[in-house]
Amino acid sequence: MSDKVYIFDTTLRDGEQVPGCQLNTEEKVRIAQAQEEMGVDVIEAGFPISSPGDFQSVVEIAKAVKEPIVCGLTRAVEKDIDVAAQALESAHRKRIHTGIGASDIHIQHKFRSTREEVLERGVHAVKYAKKYVEDVEFYAEDAGRADLNFLAQLTEAVIAAGATVVNIPDTTGYNLPWVFGEKIKFLMENVSNIDKAIISVHCHNDLGLATANTIAGLANGARQAEVTFNGIGERAGNTSLEEVVMTLKSHPHLNLETSIVTEKLYPMSKLVERLMRMPVQANKAIVGANAFAHSSGIHQDGFLKHKDNYEIISPDQVGVPESKIVLTARSGRHALKHRLENLGYVIEGKDLLDNIYEGFLDMADRIKQVEDHHLHQLATNSQVTLG
Amino acid sequence: MSDKVYIFDTTLRDGEQVPGCQLNTEEKVRIAQAQEEMGVDVIEAGFPISSPGDFQSVVEIAKAVKEPIVCGLTRAVEKDIDVAAQALESAHRKRIHTGIGASDIHIQHKFRSTREEVLERGVHAVKYAKKYVEDVEFYAEDAGRADLNFLAQLTEAVIAAGATVVNIPDTTGYNLPWVFGEKIKFLMENVSNIDKAIISVHCHNDLGLATANTIAGLANGARQAEVTFNGIGERAGNTSLEEVVMTLKSHPHLNLETSIVTEKLYPMSKLVERLMRMPVQANKAIVGANAFAHSSGIHQDGFLKHKDNYEIISPDQVGVPESKIVLTARSGRHALKHRLENLGYVIEGKDLLDNIYEGFLDMADRIKQVEDHHLHQLATNSQVTLG
Repeated sequence: MSDKVYIFDTTLRDGEQVPGCQLNTEEKVRIAQAQEEMGVDVIEAGFPISSPGDFQSVVEIAKAVKEPIVCGLTRAVEKDIDVAAQALESAHRKRIHTGIGASDIHIQHKFRSTREEVLERGVHAVKYAKKYVEDVEFYAEDAGRADLNFLAQLTEAVIAAGATVVNIPDTTGYNLPWVFGEKIKFLMENVSNIDKAIISVHCHNDLGLATANTIAGLANGARQAEVTFNGIGERAGNTSLEEVVMTLKSHPHLNLETSIVTEKLYPMSKLVERLMRMPVQANKAIVGANAFAHSSGIHQDGFLKHKDNYEIISPDQVGVPESKIVLTARSGRHALKHRLENLGYVIEGKDLLDNIYEGFLDMADRIKQVEDHHLHQLATNSQVTLG
Repeated sequence: MSDKVYIFDTTLRDGEQVPGCQLNTEEKVRIAQAQEEMGVDVIEAGFPISSPGDFQSVVEIAKAVKEPIVCGLTRAVEKDIDVAAQALESAHRKRIHTGIGASDIHIQHKFRSTREEVLERGVHAVKYAKKYVEDVEFYAEDAGRADLNFLAQLTEAVIAAGATVVNIPDTTGYNLPWVFGEKIKFLMENVSNIDKAIISVHCHNDLGLATANTIAGLANGARQAEVTFNGIGERAGNTSLEEVVMTLKSHPHLNLETSIVTEKLYPMSKLVERLMRMPVQANKAIVGANAFAHSSGIHQDGFLKHKDNYEIISPDQVGVPESKIVLTARSGRHALKHRLENLGYVIEGKDLLDNIYEGFLDMADRIKQVEDHHLHQLATNSQVTLG
């Protein structure tokens, strides 16, 4: 029997706060509906007190989805919690996500406080949020650099205060996977009331280790992963939803499963990329344009003999449309248009197509085989819009 | 005392074989010289038998650098090795990198062979290469999915045949970090002549775990990491050089150090991005445009109080030019030009600048604060070229 891992998608909160990624309410609702369709368990919809726009978006998302829990972020501040509760009023299933810094660096330099006072403020915030909602998640910010005994003490206290989920973030993306895994294991073994809450992991990718840290946390007892599509988020971003889901799926011996409909991963990645204007690099795992492209002679030969030689995931498992058409200088306008449309571009009118086709021929002469990432470049150069 | 980890940079081989990334010889030499300047230990310069162009590039790189070892890839085939040896003739320090599939999947489905025969071919290739060069690296392709006892047997046999380095690749990017680490540990403990060679790790990023797997390998005894800039390479790419180097630097307790001049990481990433036409996403660890951007109110506040609150690496450590100018709709042409030039664009003539500035104002009105990744988009739209 596999254990369920809850997918907490913070694309609309930790992802959306990145400069240039801001969405309007309509766009956010569209993403939330897609999150629901693909089986996301918890949608972090925003940080309601941060702006009237964010507040309004949480209100609309709360109305728009039924199945997923809709979650609003707050600091450990009463006003924040009041406003979040108000924004979440219409939600079928709702959660308030409150918390405070747990590392000595944050306690001293951000809160200019003490461990005792921070613990007290955390406990108070959880109790205060419980007045509004049953489901309260507590985040111990910068837990990845916190004193482990204090973190256990804090975790125990907030669970006793009613927290249903305790989020252990590696806020600065500093941890090594086996060290982070050991920390989660320590909490599982040393927090007396740990069976009354779910431990969540929320990792950042500053050293490129976010997915590994998340998996290490899950393998050691955490049962919720906080992630974003395409790994967008502060600085080097958050853990990629698609990487965590496919790592668990590719390693069934971990006995951990999610409710994500994996065939929707690629279309969702494209939707987020387009609406948030944050291009995904060609060599991004799972959803990059080249993720399933076999290019070298050795690899192509091996792949054609037996696809398992070089492929651990089949593209259709994650909804990548198989591109059987190889575009070269001998390809026609029709093949080019078809492929561009598959990538989401709208090609209206013969002039536009002629213009792109001309650029395409130049490119194909130069580089022989034209791949999806070149088509993106081509479309951008010709100012083609995404549909 | 820290142990030295050798950085084997395969940007010009595993990276360059990606469609669209092809470089001419002059560009390859330019990158090789930059690799030398930044302290790369081994430059994998190409796969000489694959094409006359690749052969010629290896010849020219061999002449152009003094300090790094120049390495050429071959299959376990005499002709390949003859050609590689010829290409490397002028190198000050040279290595032949030969090998064969080690997993049963590759042995059966790619080589239609047996473990015994593959081992024999591997041993023969190493002995054959030793006729030409002292330094022979052996790769056990798909080692990540190989039977561990056979892998140990193969490793022992090729070391006995004279291999100075044995490369254990996770060719399909399948492994979990702690499992991969255990495999390296097993080899360190069960290969009787392991002290006569260096174990190398070469990981792919199909599940987003390449950096974690590489670090796990190094923590368990490997002393060479095979990497590329920006993580370019087959499918989802190879392990990112910049992530491995900065993870080791950020975790001095691992007692592992490299010779890389970290201040050159960002400029090198930009050079590779530009010459290979492979855009790096804004949320790429270490070298992405947003890697050091603090965007949310909470984070900006915390960062301004004390930068260690949210920063484990300072941007100047990796050569990121600090951008103190915040571009908004109130910024002038001069600030815009300055920032574009910092990003490597050449803005010649008033008309071009006027044209970009117009697009910039439109954009700034819409998104308030214009970041580097928007500027790339803006420059691409206006068809500005990189210098």
